[in-house]
Amino acid sequence: MQPKVSIIMGSTSDMPIMEQAAKILNEFCIPFEINALSAHRTPHQAGEFARGAHERGVRVIIAGAGGAAHLPGVMASLTPVPVIGVPVRSVISIDGWDSILSILQMPPGTPVATVGLDAAQNAGLLAIQILAAGDDALMKKVVEYKEGLAKKIVQANQELSKIKFEYKTN
Amino acid sequence: MQPKVSIIMGSTSDMPIMEQAAKILNEFCIPFEINALSAHRTPHQAGEFARGAHERGVRVIIAGAGGAAHLPGVMASLTPVPVIGVPVRSVISIDGWDSILSILQMPPGTPVATVGLDAAQNAGLLAIQILAAGDDALMKKVVEYKEGLAKKIVQANQELSKIKFEYKTN
Amino acid sequence: MQPKVSIIMGSTSDMPIMEQAAKILNEFCIPFEINALSAHRTPHQAGEFARGAHERGVRVIIAGAGGAAHLPGVMASLTPVPVIGVPVRSVISIDGWDSILSILQMPPGTPVATVGLDAAQNAGLLAIQILAAGDDALMKKVVEYKEGLAKKIVQANQELSKIKFEYKTN
Amino acid sequence: MQPKVSIIMGSTSDMPIMEQAAKILNEFCIPFEINALSAHRTPHQAGEFARGAHERGVRVIIAGAGGAAHLPGVMASLTPVPVIGVPVRSVISIDGWDSILSILQMPPGTPVATVGLDAAQNAGLLAIQILAAGDDALMKKVVEYKEGLAKKIVQANQELSKIKFEYKTN
Amino acid sequence: MQPKVSIIMGSTSDMPIMEQAAKILNEFCIPFEINALSAHRTPHQAGEFARGAHERGVRVIIAGAGGAAHLPGVMASLTPVPVIGVPVRSVISIDGWDSILSILQMPPGTPVATVGLDAAQNAGLLAIQILAAGDDALMKKVVEYKEGLAKKIVQANQELSKIKFEYKTN
Amino acid sequence: MQPKVSIIMGSTSDMPIMEQAAKILNEFCIPFEINALSAHRTPHQAGEFARGAHERGVRVIIAGAGGAAHLPGVMASLTPVPVIGVPVRSVISIDGWDSILSILQMPPGTPVATVGLDAAQNAGLLAIQILAAGDDALMKKVVEYKEGLAKKIVQANQELSKIKFEYKTN
Amino acid sequence: MQPKVSIIMGSTSDMPIMEQAAKILNEFCIPFEINALSAHRTPHQAGEFARGAHERGVRVIIAGAGGAAHLPGVMASLTPVPVIGVPVRSVISIDGWDSILSILQMPPGTPVATVGLDAAQNAGLLAIQILAAGDDALMKKVVEYKEGLAKKIVQANQELSKIKFEYKTN
Amino acid sequence: MQPKVSIIMGSTSDMPIMEQAAKILNEFCIPFEINALSAHRTPHQAGEFARGAHERGVRVIIAGAGGAAHLPGVMASLTPVPVIGVPVRSVISIDGWDSILSILQMPPGTPVATVGLDAAQNAGLLAIQILAAGDDALMKKVVEYKEGLAKKIVQANQELSKIKFEYKTN
Repeated sequence: MQPKVSIIMGSTSDMPIMEQAAKILNEFCIPFEINALSAHRTPHQAGEFARGAHERGVRVIIAGAGGAAHLPGVMASLTPVPVIGVPVRSVISIDGWDSILSILQMPPGTPVATVGLDAAQNAGLLAIQILAAGDDALMKKVVEYKEGLAKKIVQANQELSKIKFEYKTN
Repeated sequence: MQPKVSIIMGSTSDMPIMEQAAKILNEFCIPFEINALSAHRTPHQAGEFARGAHERGVRVIIAGAGGAAHLPGVMASLTPVPVIGVPVRSVISIDGWDSILSILQMPPGTPVATVGLDAAQNAGLLAIQILAAGDDALMKKVVEYKEGLAKKIVQANQELSKIKFEYKTN
Repeated sequence: MQPKVSIIMGSTSDMPIMEQAAKILNEFCIPFEINALSAHRTPHQAGEFARGAHERGVRVIIAGAGGAAHLPGVMASLTPVPVIGVPVRSVISIDGWDSILSILQMPPGTPVATVGLDAAQNAGLLAIQILAAGDDALMKKVVEYKEGLAKKIVQANQELSKIKFEYKTN
Repeated sequence: MQPKVSIIMGSTSDMPIMEQAAKILNEFCIPFEINALSAHRTPHQAGEFARGAHERGVRVIIAGAGGAAHLPGVMASLTPVPVIGVPVRSVISIDGWDSILSILQMPPGTPVATVGLDAAQNAGLLAIQILAAGDDALMKKVVEYKEGLAKKIVQANQELSKIKFEYKTN
Repeated sequence: MQPKVSIIMGSTSDMPIMEQAAKILNEFCIPFEINALSAHRTPHQAGEFARGAHERGVRVIIAGAGGAAHLPGVMASLTPVPVIGVPVRSVISIDGWDSILSILQMPPGTPVATVGLDAAQNAGLLAIQILAAGDDALMKKVVEYKEGLAKKIVQANQELSKIKFEYKTN
Repeated sequence: MQPKVSIIMGSTSDMPIMEQAAKILNEFCIPFEINALSAHRTPHQAGEFARGAHERGVRVIIAGAGGAAHLPGVMASLTPVPVIGVPVRSVISIDGWDSILSILQMPPGTPVATVGLDAAQNAGLLAIQILAAGDDALMKKVVEYKEGLAKKIVQANQELSKIKFEYKTN
Repeated sequence: MQPKVSIIMGSTSDMPIMEQAAKILNEFCIPFEINALSAHRTPHQAGEFARGAHERGVRVIIAGAGGAAHLPGVMASLTPVPVIGVPVRSVISIDGWDSILSILQMPPGTPVATVGLDAAQNAGLLAIQILAAGDDALMKKVVEYKEGLAKKIVQANQELSKIKFEYKTN
Repeated sequence: MQPKVSIIMGSTSDMPIMEQAAKILNEFCIPFEINALSAHRTPHQAGEFARGAHERGVRVIIAGAGGAAHLPGVMASLTPVPVIGVPVRSVISIDGWDSILSILQMPPGTPVATVGLDAAQNAGLLAIQILAAGDDALMKKVVEYKEGLAKKIVQANQELSKIKFEYKTN
């Protein structure tokens, strides 16, 4: 099936984070692909990949990277498709600050839709919401998913209400 | 015409920033609406607004706020539509760090597509790219827009090449 | 007994921090309740909860959250009761900076009484001090509690004075 | 009239910020007093002041300070009354970070209810909410005040809706 | 023997850091005392202690504290003796930033001689240098101590020179 | 004359900073060129430029950019020539932190020689030092330049020594 | 008269800050000298200066610098005399963070007594307190000076008490 | 063989980081030397070393240090040779921020080519690129090395493509 979302990462060491995007796309039955591409180590492949994505039917790109994280922004400069950036708290990163700022602070004309640090699951969900903007059936699924989250916290609250604190007697 | 993008802001003092989103949507002939809604001062209106947006045909919400900037996240919790967050360096903000972090660092299940500090123009462009994911004519316009940006910098470079530095003679 | 203090948290994973508030309230025999409510995942329940709290006799709300921590501010926007915010250094947080700034930097008209990072015990004590503002017997207990803390450090100092350092002989 | 709220500041140069607390207390007809006291330059006076406040009927202390801002915490160590701390972005401060952290990060047993940077108005409102916890008539006024804020933003939104954007014609 | 240096700390949990100051004073045969005193939990004792120190012959005070670290500054406000502040990265601290800023950023008239994070050994050495300003024999010892440090690194360098790297052959 | 150093910038608005590099190269009679190239707006031109630089005889590239500053790193990924990065505190930058981190924190295999914020003059001098590594006459000039800087500060010191402070009489 | 305190700065542009140290030394009739010396531009002079200071009778060195502020630490490595470091928020500095951290975070064996950002007056006062450790007459003056500061704030408070707020009538 | 690159570090505890520079130099058959020298503990040796390096044929210096990291800058002030600075996240460092800022933010006239935190391998590669600026055979090796990095990521991508995600069936 033709992938609608393309997940890319700067290094395969980012896979444990980025596969959370894959999992939620899978859960929503969205066809996707995963690739490792480096803005710095394979600039030519990254360039060709970005230029071809739109033609191959990709509608959203999710790009994760850490440190001086240029991959999402470089992708965004080469494709008209919306790019979601996932700042990764990788081993070379300074607590994630470098990852966040090098993805978020893009110049006018080349936005990257940045999500929270290591928040690949949210990146996947955002990609689904973007696809759902033109797909009512998918939008209905998003609504149901959010209701599911609410149910879990309501349930957790019921567990909480069973905890008993004994008042100290004076 | 039915608005497809809804621009909201926490305070009308954010208008000089947020109108840059309006301008680029206008340039691309995307119907939009602008409202001031506060997650903190008009929580009820904000809630009803968010719940109704999708039904009224809104496909993307752009929300700007500064300081403890809860508006984008609160909107995202109430609508299935993708929400783009614009951190504003408002008068109460600490150099924008509070605005960025309170928009970006959303919990699992409620992503906000965050753009750079005060980057409302990029928020508008991102909204257009999201709409273009399901609209080939609009996608073509995005491609042309990006080519236009490239032309401007090529031209600027030609101006630069006219500057002459005279070499110091020893 | 009708709870006077309501402890809420964004996720049950914050319970190990937030139960420190419960413990000190218990020690002072203040009736309280604990609930998990998410500004993002259960916005409707959170809203109803906040609006009802005052009517049910709640006099102080203690709200803990991490990351883009909107729960304390959203509560404060929905209730006239003073809200104490506890920034939690949760797993998605960037060293707690996001939690602190999204709770502290509230706009005019919606203050949150913020305590230190993970300082749920201090939040509980602050709630007690607020209740004691109109309750002389409770105020007396606060004074005794603070004297108790002083005694502990005086005792610790006596232990310290028993450590002997032998002077090096030249 | 016996003051119920005591506003103190580390230096009279903080008055332009701190008088915003006075103004809102005044608006709610809460009797208050204002004093300049330095944790560092008048430690003895500050100490006596804190110890006497409770006896004189003061129910809430609002303390503002900048830089290594010790006044709120030192007050909190000397009185059982709740202390609200206002971090001031004073001339010696590093963008307010020092003011915030030295007020917020108090040790167990001595909480300070910290509000946002320069947020003296919110400090005043929080003091009112604390007093209202035991005063139904005052609580009603707080509710009305919050409704007033909502009205202002609704009005501002109506002004916003009059702005017209002309769509670019292709 | 009458102590010339007084080491104080906000909590006995800071002892593992602060005893490094004791050890180097011991090595230089400087009489000292160690006490736990809290600016927040034993403000009265801390006050009396500071006022008495000078009369008892103390010439330098070394004060360590973490979080909203007020002890060094409060001491400096109560004594004419120079106070050296040691920011401690304690359990409640945000990576030490709060400790550093609340000790360093003192207002005009009340300096604290701040050393690096957890740098109690350097605080001890600085106290010795201060005492040596009026004591030639002690100054000679300081010079010898610094020569000793140099010897250690020269020796370490000789060890380093024994490491052999084998050049890759093409 | 064939340029040995190539100065590039992300936007012509960076010219007032970057021309300081040009001036010092000029002072040392090093042939150079200046171009505006954007990693995001003219990715194709930037790519071709980088690949061709080495062939055209360029020996050092100086790249300045602000915000999510990808130009230096993208250049470094496309050329074997050493790239000096100048973080620019541009209008979209957050006090320069984003510019610094997105240039400095490059992944293994693609170093950028980063200089201080807005330090284009130092970038020029570093380029000269790199060229001087294989050019004894140029190295001699570097030594003379540094001696010149020393002379200026010696002179400034002589001016300083003329300032007279009158001692207060008791 | 033989200078007891030596004020040095990295650049004469730091003079407007550093002369505040001179002024307070002058007020206390402490003989001092002022010099501009750069750890980077006049390393030889700085080295000789530091080594000679102690022999010439200098008892305390006050060193101010901005950016990568090495002067205080380099001085401390060359002299047994206590060195007070003044971080200066100079034009190349990033809000003073670089100045503070490069002065404060010295390695074991080479402490620098760091004061607040731009706090040259406090550096002067600290130097006086160090000299007073072995000089009872000077110590008495320090006590008087601190009493003077207290009087000023008491007076300021009396001015404050004259401000009248008119209570709003309902 | 005469070393062309000189690796120095402030403490032998930095060796596990700094040996990564040695390894890559070794891989490229570049003769190098390693020494431990402290700007603070062996200022005289460090000074003589820096002055002699150029005469001994050293063409690039790589200097690593942590905390208030003065070694790279002090070296740069004493030699005309380009100095590469490696900020080390050592035990006394505050997450590396102090190391980065004290190396990066050098004053005009004394640049240090700073690489990322703990990025000694990149420092080695940058030294090789600097030497290659005047050595075509070495430049060819740099090109090959970069191609090797690209191959590795292409291979990693092929591994990635073997992972299979099973689509959830509705």
